[in-house]
Amino acid sequence: MTLDWLGDHESEQVRERRFDLWRHDRRVPGVLWTPSDAAGPRPLVLLGHGASGSKRQDYVLSMARRFVRHHGFAAAAVDGPVHGDRRDPASPAGQRVFLDFAQVWSSDAAMTDAMVADYVSVLDELQGLEDVGAGPVGWWGLSMGTILGLPFVAAEPRVQACVLGLMGMTGPTQERIRSDASAVRCPVLFLVQWDDELFSRETAFELFGALGSADKRLHAVPGSHGAVTEEEWEASEGFLARYLQK
Amino acid sequence: MTLDWLGDHESEQVRERRFDLWRHDRRVPGVLWTPSDAAGPRPLVLLGHGASGSKRQDYVLSMARRFVRHHGFAAAAVDGPVHGDRRDPASPAGQRVFLDFAQVWSSDAAMTDAMVADYVSVLDELQGLEDVGAGPVGWWGLSMGTILGLPFVAAEPRVQACVLGLMGMTGPTQERIRSDASAVRCPVLFLVQWDDELFSRETAFELFGALGSADKRLHAVPGSHGAVTEEEWEASEGFLARYLQK
Repeated sequence: MTLDWLGDHESEQVRERRFDLWRHDRRVPGVLWTPSDAAGPRPLVLLGHGASGSKRQDYVLSMARRFVRHHGFAAAAVDGPVHGDRRDPASPAGQRVFLDFAQVWSSDAAMTDAMVADYVSVLDELQGLEDVGAGPVGWWGLSMGTILGLPFVAAEPRVQACVLGLMGMTGPTQERIRSDASAVRCPVLFLVQWDDELFSRETAFELFGALGSADKRLHAVPGSHGAVTEEEWEASEGFLARYLQK
Repeated sequence: MTLDWLGDHESEQVRERRFDLWRHDRRVPGVLWTPSDAAGPRPLVLLGHGASGSKRQDYVLSMARRFVRHHGFAAAAVDGPVHGDRRDPASPAGQRVFLDFAQVWSSDAAMTDAMVADYVSVLDELQGLEDVGAGPVGWWGLSMGTILGLPFVAAEPRVQACVLGLMGMTGPTQERIRSDASAVRCPVLFLVQWDDELFSRETAFELFGALGSADKRLHAVPGSHGAVTEEEWEASEGFLARYLQK
């Protein structure tokens, strides 16, 4: 594996480093955020973005900076399949990315395992950095960030707490989702949008019920798939801060 | 109406006053908690206890003292029907109170309106006190505290935020519950125990969905009816503190 650093800049005490991790011939484009003055090990939150977004979309950047600025954590995000810097720049963007992801989710059984391996490798590499180190690890990802995050959390014992949600027991890989859910053991905050037009609350409740963790909680608020409230961003932040600082 | 003060003592900066409010010939036994040094108006939280409990049961006392000590609020609780000091001291207690309440809930359509009138009168009287005053009002009550609190919150425009839960769209007065739920307009935090053996989560979700408030959120955690977590006591406290301090 090789980690190539592609950019390094700072904004208001947050250092942001763009990287490409090469796993054999597979390129994993990511971003790492740390406190500007970071030295020594600290908790690390891995963030999964939503379908049609990317590793640096507004809410991922915002959540990452909260963890860094408010808690001194490190945070990192990676582009999903057919997203961001993994996408052919000549291909259509916007809603088309959403469709492309739906297709790869339906048709490519190896996609999920490849993404889990990407995240594991990123975690290995980042924990080798002096200013990240082998501290507690959290996962934060909604919607596609749960589609890809749930199997990662299920497979990775280093994850000590996770925020999941905006996703249900549905889709092309339902049996896989069920077995991954039952394998999760860490504390979970699971977010539901009551009027979610992509994943009905009934399927979301079913997924929450299937999570193997004894310590889990579900927060539901009215609104559509994308209408997560500021209160729930704050709950996400507070939850991971509480469990990773222990 | 007459307010009789029956006791007044202090413990760790919390003043606790026992009162009987007389509404014609109906006695309404209650407790008021205020900061020992209280002067002037402040938010007031009314607390409803659970079936077979009373106005001063452990978690009511604990919640009341949190509001007083952490936020400088006033708090008050009143015995429910066939409970506490409304109960013939010679009659059997414990689980028998639960059965007696179930019976009065099923058979006495006037019970709910009488309890709502009790709470309205208590609110009128307490807001007349110099160290409580006409500040913002909150409601906190789970289970029987929602059975009786929902109609009170629906009827009382002074209530600006409420915590409800451990109850569902079920029971002998379902049409009344539905119309009261749709009349609620204030912000709500609604608590659900995933494995509630008295009110299934499906009926709890239905009640949450029926609440007329645009600003509402549901928190669910695994566990039986009585197994509310410390995290949700804290969420209750934080929610009411945030909305009543505005």
